[in-house]
Amino acid sequence: MKILNKISQCRNNVKELKKKGQKIGLVPTMGYLHEGHLSLVKAARQQCQKVFLTIFVNPTQFGPTEDFNRYPRDLKRDFVLAEENRVDYIFSPEAKEVYKKGHTTYVEAGNITKKMCGTYRPGHFKGVVTTVLKLFNIIPAHKAYFGRKDYQQLVAIKKMVEDLDLDIEIIDCPTVRGKDGLALSSRNKLLEPKQRENAVVLYEQLKQAEKAILSGERVPRKIKDVAVKALKDNPFIQKIDYFDIRDAKDLKKLNDIKRGKDILIATAVWVGGTRLIDNIVICK
Amino acid sequence: MKILNKISQCRNNVKELKKKGQKIGLVPTMGYLHEGHLSLVKAARQQCQKVFLTIFVNPTQFGPTEDFNRYPRDLKRDFVLAEENRVDYIFSPEAKEVYKKGHTTYVEAGNITKKMCGTYRPGHFKGVVTTVLKLFNIIPAHKAYFGRKDYQQLVAIKKMVEDLDLDIEIIDCPTVRGKDGLALSSRNKLLEPKQRENAVVLYEQLKQAEKAILSGERVPRKIKDVAVKALKDNPFIQKIDYFDIRDAKDLKKLNDIKRGKDILIATAVWVGGTRLIDNIVICK
Repeated sequence: MKILNKISQCRNNVKELKKKGQKIGLVPTMGYLHEGHLSLVKAARQQCQKVFLTIFVNPTQFGPTEDFNRYPRDLKRDFVLAEENRVDYIFSPEAKEVYKKGHTTYVEAGNITKKMCGTYRPGHFKGVVTTVLKLFNIIPAHKAYFGRKDYQQLVAIKKMVEDLDLDIEIIDCPTVRGKDGLALSSRNKLLEPKQRENAVVLYEQLKQAEKAILSGERVPRKIKDVAVKALKDNPFIQKIDYFDIRDAKDLKKLNDIKRGKDILIATAVWVGGTRLIDNIVICK
Repeated sequence: MKILNKISQCRNNVKELKKKGQKIGLVPTMGYLHEGHLSLVKAARQQCQKVFLTIFVNPTQFGPTEDFNRYPRDLKRDFVLAEENRVDYIFSPEAKEVYKKGHTTYVEAGNITKKMCGTYRPGHFKGVVTTVLKLFNIIPAHKAYFGRKDYQQLVAIKKMVEDLDLDIEIIDCPTVRGKDGLALSSRNKLLEPKQRENAVVLYEQLKQAEKAILSGERVPRKIKDVAVKALKDNPFIQKIDYFDIRDAKDLKKLNDIKRGKDILIATAVWVGGTRLIDNIVICK
């Protein structure tokens, strides 16, 4: 496994691989790897000849009051996990290698980034989309792998790829969960044991909502009310940013639930000082 | 010469050329070709093995009250000129091929696009930069050629390339002028004979300002006042958007002129209903 810190190293390696006609898979992460990330690596490993993993805690996707400094990091451990999972190249640049002094260019993917998490984290998706585009330009892979846990991020990236005519295939992989159902997230590390235990209420309420829809409930408001009440009743949930039922494609809110389109049930809540998100998609 | 209308055709042709290791030059234009465009083609012809010319009157760079509909077009003539100048591929898509229904992603290159023409044409550079990025993705060439007449556009594109880590070299070529000195522009076609004759005042005043600076004048205000007066005195100049002396690199206004940096003298004025721009750069 080669560890790269410089953009020029990435370019040179990719050029050599492409000359040989090798298919390249890219797994962009913020590090502190867990089984969710590793499932992306495994998918890339199966579909591509060479796998690039990037580890970059992207400063531009954190707001000024957010947890950039608190975000868990452990590069040494990440390198071991990456090597065990047969990653070929790691790109783990310093922030200043990616965002040079005087950087001013940003990409906005439009309306789909203004709702849900975009309402509560203004500028977040601008930072995500810009950084992902930069990574795609630095490592012009054939396929890039993203988890469905960050569902809105996935939709924004797909929209950017489509609108900007990027020649890369976005592969989305299922959310990986703990035994109790909690979606794996590097941020889970920040939870106290009691918080961690109670955090499963997100998944429970998503499943509850899914069950209601599958049983024929057509009024999102009713489903939402049940979920919000249960979340509020849990003393470890500090705040509910949203619990929404939306069109899984354009993220528009649904007023009534008609099967025939994919339906997204998504939530973002605060467990203590840690913001967790999760979702379930019901396919038509 | 191959004429392409579809993104997929561009991709396939570029892939074939790259497999053969051929260097590709890209000349993005809005058509109605003149000697300025052809000088870009000639430069590309000299430096690259294959030359792509794009002809796309980009709707997103025109404001709602601007001259999108009036902008001169003559594809048939353009094809003849392109062929005569040994262009290998023309990409002349319909607007809906490039901007599909529901397009929402845009790129902003930051502060440098907010001044000068950006003040008078809000959204213009957002449209330019987004479209140029899309063209770079559709035809991932090794080098792309732009004229210095659209100086702020050139700076914005270079900034975007740098900030988004694009692997393409931007080559800027000198402004081509008529016998009297007027910068060639497709929009010159829109001028009445008397307007055309008087439009040379732009270049005359740029040259006057250049002369003053080269003679040691250090106060931009003084140089500007002379130029603005001369422009105002010409009855064919309807309106002066700006006549500015700036740092040629970051486009910041200069309060006094110190040699040792490149200096941009740039102007935008209205000759009747037609907006013309021109500039001179004094190199350190």
